[in-house]
Amino acid sequence: MEQHASNTVPSTLSGADLALLDRYWRAANYLSVGQIYLLDNPLLREPLKPEHIKPRLLGHWGTTPGLNFIYVHLNRMIRARDLDIIYMCGPGHGGPGMVANTYLEGTYSEIYPDISEDADGMQKLFRQFSFPGGIPSHAAPETPGSIHEGGELGYALVHAYGAAFDNPELTVACVVGDGEAETGPLAASWHSNKFLNPARDGAVLPILHLNGYKIANPTILARASNADLRDLFQGYGYQPFFVEGHEPADMHSKMAAAFDAVFDQIRDIQAKARSGGAGTPRWPMIVLRSPKGWTGPKEVDGKKVEGFWRAHQVPVSNCRGDDGHRKILEDWMRSYEPENLFDADGRLKDDLQALAPKGNRRMGANPHANGGLLRKELSVPNIGDYEIKIGDRGSQAVQSTEIFGQYLRDVLKLNAKNANFRIFGPDETDSNRLGSVFEATDRVWMENIEPYDVHLSRDGRVMEVLSEHLCQGWLEGYLLTGRHGLFSCYEAFIHIVDSMFNQHAKWLKVTRELAWRKPISSLNYLLTSHVWRQDHNGFSHQDPGFVDLVANKKADIVRIYLPPDANTLLWVGDHCLKTYDRVNVIVAGKQPEPQYLTMDEAIKHCKAGIGIWEWASNEDNTIAPDVIMACAGDVPTMETLAAVSLLREMIPDMKMRVVNVVDLLALQAKEQHPHGLEHGEFDRIFTKDKPVIFAYHGYPYLIHRLTYKRTNHENIHVRGFIEEGTTTTPFDMTVLNELDRFHLAIEAIERVPGLKEKVPDVLDRLHLKLAEHHAYVREYGEDMPEVRNWKWPAS
Amino acid sequence: MEQHASNTVPSTLSGADLALLDRYWRAANYLSVGQIYLLDNPLLREPLKPEHIKPRLLGHWGTTPGLNFIYVHLNRMIRARDLDIIYMCGPGHGGPGMVANTYLEGTYSEIYPDISEDADGMQKLFRQFSFPGGIPSHAAPETPGSIHEGGELGYALVHAYGAAFDNPELTVACVVGDGEAETGPLAASWHSNKFLNPARDGAVLPILHLNGYKIANPTILARASNADLRDLFQGYGYQPFFVEGHEPADMHSKMAAAFDAVFDQIRDIQAKARSGGAGTPRWPMIVLRSPKGWTGPKEVDGKKVEGFWRAHQVPVSNCRGDDGHRKILEDWMRSYEPENLFDADGRLKDDLQALAPKGNRRMGANPHANGGLLRKELSVPNIGDYEIKIGDRGSQAVQSTEIFGQYLRDVLKLNAKNANFRIFGPDETDSNRLGSVFEATDRVWMENIEPYDVHLSRDGRVMEVLSEHLCQGWLEGYLLTGRHGLFSCYEAFIHIVDSMFNQHAKWLKVTRELAWRKPISSLNYLLTSHVWRQDHNGFSHQDPGFVDLVANKKADIVRIYLPPDANTLLWVGDHCLKTYDRVNVIVAGKQPEPQYLTMDEAIKHCKAGIGIWEWASNEDNTIAPDVIMACAGDVPTMETLAAVSLLREMIPDMKMRVVNVVDLLALQAKEQHPHGLEHGEFDRIFTKDKPVIFAYHGYPYLIHRLTYKRTNHENIHVRGFIEEGTTTTPFDMTVLNELDRFHLAIEAIERVPGLKEKVPDVLDRLHLKLAEHHAYVREYGEDMPEVRNWKWPAS
Repeated sequence: MEQHASNTVPSTLSGADLALLDRYWRAANYLSVGQIYLLDNPLLREPLKPEHIKPRLLGHWGTTPGLNFIYVHLNRMIRARDLDIIYMCGPGHGGPGMVANTYLEGTYSEIYPDISEDADGMQKLFRQFSFPGGIPSHAAPETPGSIHEGGELGYALVHAYGAAFDNPELTVACVVGDGEAETGPLAASWHSNKFLNPARDGAVLPILHLNGYKIANPTILARASNADLRDLFQGYGYQPFFVEGHEPADMHSKMAAAFDAVFDQIRDIQAKARSGGAGTPRWPMIVLRSPKGWTGPKEVDGKKVEGFWRAHQVPVSNCRGDDGHRKILEDWMRSYEPENLFDADGRLKDDLQALAPKGNRRMGANPHANGGLLRKELSVPNIGDYEIKIGDRGSQAVQSTEIFGQYLRDVLKLNAKNANFRIFGPDETDSNRLGSVFEATDRVWMENIEPYDVHLSRDGRVMEVLSEHLCQGWLEGYLLTGRHGLFSCYEAFIHIVDSMFNQHAKWLKVTRELAWRKPISSLNYLLTSHVWRQDHNGFSHQDPGFVDLVANKKADIVRIYLPPDANTLLWVGDHCLKTYDRVNVIVAGKQPEPQYLTMDEAIKHCKAGIGIWEWASNEDNTIAPDVIMACAGDVPTMETLAAVSLLREMIPDMKMRVVNVVDLLALQAKEQHPHGLEHGEFDRIFTKDKPVIFAYHGYPYLIHRLTYKRTNHENIHVRGFIEEGTTTTPFDMTVLNELDRFHLAIEAIERVPGLKEKVPDVLDRLHLKLAEHHAYVREYGEDMPEVRNWKWPAS
Repeated sequence: MEQHASNTVPSTLSGADLALLDRYWRAANYLSVGQIYLLDNPLLREPLKPEHIKPRLLGHWGTTPGLNFIYVHLNRMIRARDLDIIYMCGPGHGGPGMVANTYLEGTYSEIYPDISEDADGMQKLFRQFSFPGGIPSHAAPETPGSIHEGGELGYALVHAYGAAFDNPELTVACVVGDGEAETGPLAASWHSNKFLNPARDGAVLPILHLNGYKIANPTILARASNADLRDLFQGYGYQPFFVEGHEPADMHSKMAAAFDAVFDQIRDIQAKARSGGAGTPRWPMIVLRSPKGWTGPKEVDGKKVEGFWRAHQVPVSNCRGDDGHRKILEDWMRSYEPENLFDADGRLKDDLQALAPKGNRRMGANPHANGGLLRKELSVPNIGDYEIKIGDRGSQAVQSTEIFGQYLRDVLKLNAKNANFRIFGPDETDSNRLGSVFEATDRVWMENIEPYDVHLSRDGRVMEVLSEHLCQGWLEGYLLTGRHGLFSCYEAFIHIVDSMFNQHAKWLKVTRELAWRKPISSLNYLLTSHVWRQDHNGFSHQDPGFVDLVANKKADIVRIYLPPDANTLLWVGDHCLKTYDRVNVIVAGKQPEPQYLTMDEAIKHCKAGIGIWEWASNEDNTIAPDVIMACAGDVPTMETLAAVSLLREMIPDMKMRVVNVVDLLALQAKEQHPHGLEHGEFDRIFTKDKPVIFAYHGYPYLIHRLTYKRTNHENIHVRGFIEEGTTTTPFDMTVLNELDRFHLAIEAIERVPGLKEKVPDVLDRLHLKLAEHHAYVREYGEDMPEVRNWKWPAS
């Protein structure tokens, strides 16, 4: 705090106003401490006894008083200006503060009537916190007004921007803790201001809360000088306002003044932009320096606590067993003067109740923080309008994602008025062949636009930034506030957001258990540029393992689709956009590939999830086939069909059944996943005892894992990606991983009992083909014509 | 480029010097273009014909001339000042440039003699690039001088810092592309300067290369004003030097001057710090603005290419089929005047050869970029010195990580002189009970240190920052340059670096195939604060799925250990620190837990990987047991033993075998993993047909996946984490996920044929216990005393 803040203006609030604010703040702090410590005696009507204290003290005090301070001052702004504000609580560990404030404003008791606004309710409020059967220690789905899980840090600011897009009347006040500010995703999130259009979007007010310490260390930004901080945030494009100190009255005055100034500035920026003013605004932000564990114990056992990292969790720990510790706790709680905050019934006193906003203006009740309430169904076109007409099956090469791009273009057009659909991706919309969307919209860009730029504008609905974290986080914030979207990404690099996916899936799992949380649109991934077609790239771009992570989540939450052609992709994409409270992963290539199914067939196939392709099979329907040739994914499907066509020609009386899997989790048993096939149906398709040669898009283990409960699983032989990646031809990639048509055909022969002895010449020819391929690609640098030009033979 | 750079000084180089630099640069550019395009006719001794052109044109030109430009100027500095510099190529897509430069300096031909320094070698050099059987398109392990895989962007700068730590004579020149600069990890990496001590560490020179565009978009930083950039990087703590333009002679002059200035400044900072000067330095950095695809075609088919995103990959594409395109390519290549660069044999002309540094000073030959060459074995103490003496088995509670912390303390002491071991983690070393290390060292911190700070110093060897990305990236850079380290992390949040782990594992996989790449130390994770003990936290901190990702990698590269107590953790930790070219994952709790094995037993058990715990079993060794009670992980082991002790008391003639798995991948078949048990041994332990109740630390599916080839796998019933997480008591977490002693005991009874009908009273009692637990925790907020105080019964 070596440098004085220079750009805050004096407060215009009276001493009485400030004193009221301070009392409200003390009420929030009191309730926060009570949640961490007390089982009973919530109003301290008697001296604290050991049995009033929870046996296990769990929670985080350090950040909480600062969060409460901000909440109280936001309440003031909402009332004074009738603002529409939600509170993004980056330091979600300060859960007690969020709960306390929503309780004080009345929202909590409306949602959870058992936690009433009286002494009895307060006792339950305290008891339930971090208590078995109660509520989590962090801000969580259970917390009213929250769309941001506390815990894994880094995503507060990107969620805030996602919430603000297309919500012109909304301001998202986003508290960023100085621990969180050290993370990569947060460090990049500051640049989100380059994608926020003040004319059509809402505002984000970042509040960098420097309380100095993490768990056991100072923080980088807290130890930086104000000069460096000013430079840093000006460099990011903001105008920082500093509020710093520790004396409450002084701090209330400074904070009120700073809020007056920044909300003036936000209003001015928006007014200018909305009256046609140009230019990229410099949005305000606040740097708040306040002590960690502010107003808590200064010292415990002779060691510094307030203003130090020892205040991070539970500042005084042995309050059951140690009379001295319990005395510290009691003095601390009484320092807030509960008798001046709550009436005889334990209800917040009337003069303080008057400080909270009313109805939906309360941040705990703001519908933007329960986005399902505001969600409008997406208008979608008829997928039949984009159908690829199948002439001779497997004969025409089409870029499936290009067709899906036409569909997305029309989704954008149909929902333009509602302004509730966006597409997100790291600079790959065109590369992923979704370029048709640029007939309907542009990429959004708030920095300079040059005359030679292509499809850049202030109003674009495609959001491209070379950060998967930002794409994911913006989309999450957008969905959580009731809108729709799609994230298109390179398959390998979606692992960058594994942990964000995890947290979002956890959020969905819990919200489904809360009736008051209304369903939100699903998070939809389109993973194209997949492992098998990284022509310009190599091993670093090859990893199909994201779906393995996804498959670990609760079955209700996740779906994985591998459409083999354009019509199936259309059905799957359209279906995913209509679902809610899920994560849908679609893996589909962007390169020209054969087309197999008419739209009618595609619809039937996708609804079933797994199906026998009779047109490709040559089995005798009166007896079981010799072998099942199963496939999932576009490239494995093509290789399987090529293997089948080779074998049909070479060994006409070998009877094969071709099975395609489009809905991967249908492989699981019904008791494991709602889409799982019934065992009888699975046995009908895969038989109980015939060899299954399964060509799979990703790591083969996943198929074993999904099918281990199936009758015939011992005969399922899976080929997939076995980490043999490099820059090479598309077909060579399949050969290196032994997923190609020749390897598949060889294994099929070898797995049919007694067959290989009968057809040694066929095996020789297939091995020779592999050798030919090997020589050819190394000589010419491209695949053999018979591979490049392969088509399913016309029937 | 709207603002002129003000802080570069005039160049002192002569015109002749600059012309030489320019010719060397042109040679590098020529070789780069040749790699992307040519199969033959490398020196353009005849007009280009279609058959000279590769059929598939793959690679990235856009970034390459800028990378070459920097390389040439770094060569100049190395020669002029005898500097020790490695080149961190953030835009790894510019692989052709890195290959070209190491070929020009002679390194490439030394490592790959087949690629000789003549026309024949040049032809092979061109042909192999992005060609089947050749080299990848990006900078990769195959690239001399590289320790940084091109592809997934974001980690160049953090790798650079990792390489510089404890290498006082080394400078890491780190090129950061403006695309990469949009990523989260890179945005946080700039703050690494707060952890670099100029007295003991080397220097990092960041070169932000603004060439303006990503694949199809401008970049955020390229469109920022110089004023904002200056603020931003000053805010990050750097002093930026701007070099901008496009006219080569002018740019050479500016770059030479800028390099003179920044290397002067680095020298001064180091000299001051090493003579005892205090203060946090403001390190220099360079902002280089040059056109994308610089010196390439200005326009193709009437569309802007140079200086625009169309130059990103292959600027002119149809050079085989289109005479006009081929003419553009030929003119472009001839513009470099190859006849003035290479002699009649195709060798770089002598006057240009003289510009390259010699021997190990060549950046392609610098041993720091092949760290195994410099790696010194770690000195480790005798694990026996830390043994926990086991009295009555399972009776004393010990924090295993606390004991391991004592061992790590002594590793730090033993290697203090070599200065080649560091511990990394996001602010959790103490929280993870490794605090003993602070008896040997501190946390490193270069910002202000206050009198009340604890264990912070300029010379600490523990690196804590609230960014898993930085921890991982620093450690990778540190290992790749031949040192040793450990990353201790919350289990759930290690998913944040899933993709970084992936890329490192890929790097290791490829380096193992390259004899000239010497082995480096393994990347060791200690995942403590695991899913079962998140007392202060909740669902957001609960995810044991990282090992699932790890298990997808090539078997040779990965190991997963779940030591159940302190002595096993000591053996495992000690073993991992001695290995190389691997990723080792250790999952072990930090809470007080029962201790089971003596050190002798622990060593035997860990070496076997899986073992029968006879002391816990009650089987009759002449016949097979009724049930196998298997476990992996500390909490599952405790619950399994508790279940066994209950059952032994309740049903004395039920015969149980207790099996503990410490080396998880030993569950796989030998043909799948080198640690896999032989089938015979597996069958001996798990039987061929008896029920196995398997209590596993993580997601149960992984056990199914690992054992699907085993004879008895249909009888393996796995319990693990099923996504039922929240803030609750430790035992309640196991109950919610049905992994607790009561559920295990119930399932054991139900799986033994005919047993449950015989002991309905036992089943009733076990169900009653669950109900008792449920009521108790919700009443008292802690676990029942019989659970809290559970001990394995003394024999």
